[in-house]
Amino acid sequence: MRAVDIISRKRDGLELSRAEIESFIAGYVAGDIPDYQAAAWLMAVLLRGMTPEETAYLTEAMAYSGETLDLHDVAPFVVDKHSSGGVGDKTTLVVGPIVSSFGVPVGKMSGRGLSFSGGTLDKLEAIPGFRTDLSIDAFKRQLQEIGLVVAGQTQVLAPADGKLYALRDVTGTVPSRPLIASSIMSKKIAAGADGIVLDVKAGHGAFMETEEAAVELAELMVAIGTRLGRKMTALIGDMSQPLGLAIGNSLEVVEAVQTLQGAGPEDFSQHSVDVAAEMLLMADRAATPGLARAMAERSLHDGSAWAKFREFVAAQGGDLAAVDDPSLLPAAPIVMELPAPRSGNISLVDPRELGFAVVELGGGRERKEDDIDPAVGIVLADDTKLGRAVEAGKPLMSVHARDAESLDRVAPRLAAAVQISEEPGEPRSHTHRVIRAAEGA
Amino acid sequence: MRAVDIISRKRDGLELSRAEIESFIAGYVAGDIPDYQAAAWLMAVLLRGMTPEETAYLTEAMAYSGETLDLHDVAPFVVDKHSSGGVGDKTTLVVGPIVSSFGVPVGKMSGRGLSFSGGTLDKLEAIPGFRTDLSIDAFKRQLQEIGLVVAGQTQVLAPADGKLYALRDVTGTVPSRPLIASSIMSKKIAAGADGIVLDVKAGHGAFMETEEAAVELAELMVAIGTRLGRKMTALIGDMSQPLGLAIGNSLEVVEAVQTLQGAGPEDFSQHSVDVAAEMLLMADRAATPGLARAMAERSLHDGSAWAKFREFVAAQGGDLAAVDDPSLLPAAPIVMELPAPRSGNISLVDPRELGFAVVELGGGRERKEDDIDPAVGIVLADDTKLGRAVEAGKPLMSVHARDAESLDRVAPRLAAAVQISEEPGEPRSHTHRVIRAAEGA
Repeated sequence: MRAVDIISRKRDGLELSRAEIESFIAGYVAGDIPDYQAAAWLMAVLLRGMTPEETAYLTEAMAYSGETLDLHDVAPFVVDKHSSGGVGDKTTLVVGPIVSSFGVPVGKMSGRGLSFSGGTLDKLEAIPGFRTDLSIDAFKRQLQEIGLVVAGQTQVLAPADGKLYALRDVTGTVPSRPLIASSIMSKKIAAGADGIVLDVKAGHGAFMETEEAAVELAELMVAIGTRLGRKMTALIGDMSQPLGLAIGNSLEVVEAVQTLQGAGPEDFSQHSVDVAAEMLLMADRAATPGLARAMAERSLHDGSAWAKFREFVAAQGGDLAAVDDPSLLPAAPIVMELPAPRSGNISLVDPRELGFAVVELGGGRERKEDDIDPAVGIVLADDTKLGRAVEAGKPLMSVHARDAESLDRVAPRLAAAVQISEEPGEPRSHTHRVIRAAEGA
Repeated sequence: MRAVDIISRKRDGLELSRAEIESFIAGYVAGDIPDYQAAAWLMAVLLRGMTPEETAYLTEAMAYSGETLDLHDVAPFVVDKHSSGGVGDKTTLVVGPIVSSFGVPVGKMSGRGLSFSGGTLDKLEAIPGFRTDLSIDAFKRQLQEIGLVVAGQTQVLAPADGKLYALRDVTGTVPSRPLIASSIMSKKIAAGADGIVLDVKAGHGAFMETEEAAVELAELMVAIGTRLGRKMTALIGDMSQPLGLAIGNSLEVVEAVQTLQGAGPEDFSQHSVDVAAEMLLMADRAATPGLARAMAERSLHDGSAWAKFREFVAAQGGDLAAVDDPSLLPAAPIVMELPAPRSGNISLVDPRELGFAVVELGGGRERKEDDIDPAVGIVLADDTKLGRAVEAGKPLMSVHARDAESLDRVAPRLAAAVQISEEPGEPRSHTHRVIRAAEGA
């Protein structure tokens, strides 16, 4: 099977066979197929598309392109979650402890922030001492001992995805539904997930800007996972405004701690409960969605999720004093409040602009190799949410900066990111829709 | 201007600006843009297409990507021709001498055969001693001294085309009209042509199988050349059967010599006159197409084209004795006649199969690096042309082979390539159509 023939078949809009896809991926990982042939193929896939069958074959070929993690000796049924990223999304920090507190093991590989979107590893590393570069052995040991572990993606899992992703990034072949879906799903499957809850965000602060695009991606991933024998559920959530109030690594840890103690912002608490409930349902710990939600909520109020979080932080070397007293977390020297320029109703809280503002403050990455400052960021006021009434002069947000210069630089961007209208506003609910795969489908 | 942005714009179906195309081509030739980015871009161009404007910008960027030939010190107006390739196409060997015999300088860069299609350089090199690897200086000197020179494409002209062509070959991005047109036209423009006659073949023995595809390619090349200030004419010719009777390098030289002496096969003689007439018209040597054709025909009968051919062969080191007495050209040890299995009318003379049969006999290339045997090939009988009546047992063709083994191997292919029907046949005219650009358009 020649690489150029496989490229040409996809170029002509034909459906590739499982053998063709496997041969192409194996050849690329082995270095027999050069980057330039893979690049032409990726562009043909982007422009011609792939059927769900082809996408499932691609996912499988990438998932099994290197080592895979088998966690069944320490966890009989492994539930994972994946978030498609967003602004203020610290969901894993809360959901992991909730689910684990019910005895469901959660072993997760997470990523770092890029562009306007934050990343779970960066957030956890704002806790002094917290380590995310765990060996596979350490990962499994912690999963067995305390039932909760979060580490960085290792290079030995799904190497085809790592290699293809780097190539997509420089060849204009990122925005392709089958390529995005197979990239996400191959990592989850290589990491040993038996069931996956997808937390897909739609809106201006997400990579999928419309709900339709988010639903299509979610449905494709659910179909792939189901075809490959995994339990699948997808939640379509709103990212037309930031999730919760805090944006910035240290500030988001503070908000996660508040939430784990039952005192988090309403939208973020509800979203965490929604995601955790789906994971509990999937692991057969609850009979109905309503019961699952009640369990998740209870764990935020009875201290069990918080206790699990403390165990988890300690196990990964994090400083417990800093989570018990968040004033000991890295803090920015300058905190400035931005007042509302007029009274009215909030009509825009642009998550993408706020995410980029945090990047500009030094709290995110423009390029993968950038260093980040965990202390900087933004905390929105409680009423800086779509549809809420605000009063002129009252603070819209507090900005945490490392110097006056960076504060001055982002001020115009922040002022434009929040808009106030005289029209009566309409609040938005966070979760739009749940897509559950038929059992055993 | 980042390469990935230019790729992404074409991926999204947008029209690229002149500056974007120039920057991409310059970056690729300089090695700043790697093969994998060029490959993704080529696939996006193939699938999204290019406007005639973009194709002209691409042609110009490739034409000026290296050195260009300025022949105006030795030839005031340079007329070139380009054939899109085919089976039995020895047109340059006859047209060059005709046109040059009227004092119109013809300095041509030609190519080699690949797959079922032959190449002018291979044909000329069948003449013992004939050299085609001329320096630019030697090329210009000969053009000035005798007004006719044919050499191999040098690497210094249009290096972007050479580099992109090699990449297209291995990335499934050959069959794209804008890429084919810009590749051909960039080489002609870099080689200093002021006017170009395109000899585009349509049919099963050509790269464009349908007349529509050939016309679209021809019209695009005429539009590009006109936009870049060149005089342009295109002839759409038939390649549903071989051109002339001889296929194979040495055998085609023999047929060219016969034609230059006024005794060639009718279809090939007419085609040579058609192409030469357009070149004479373009160079303002004739007032009307009819007069131009009459001039070209006369030169085949009054010995002037033949005399020019002898000068040309001698200037490039070829053995005049071998063209004066073609029995001195390389000859195959075995010549076998293939008889008609039945009486009837010729309904198929498959040029592609005959071309591949010559490759199998050793007279063509499957891969660029293959060596070829100039002596082998096929000579069709006069009546082995579509629509002619043939009688059972009379020869359909003679096959020139180097050994009995290769002869046995190709026999079934040859038998299937010519078919005889009881239906009355219809002869095909060779030239379908002439596309002339409006003067100064």
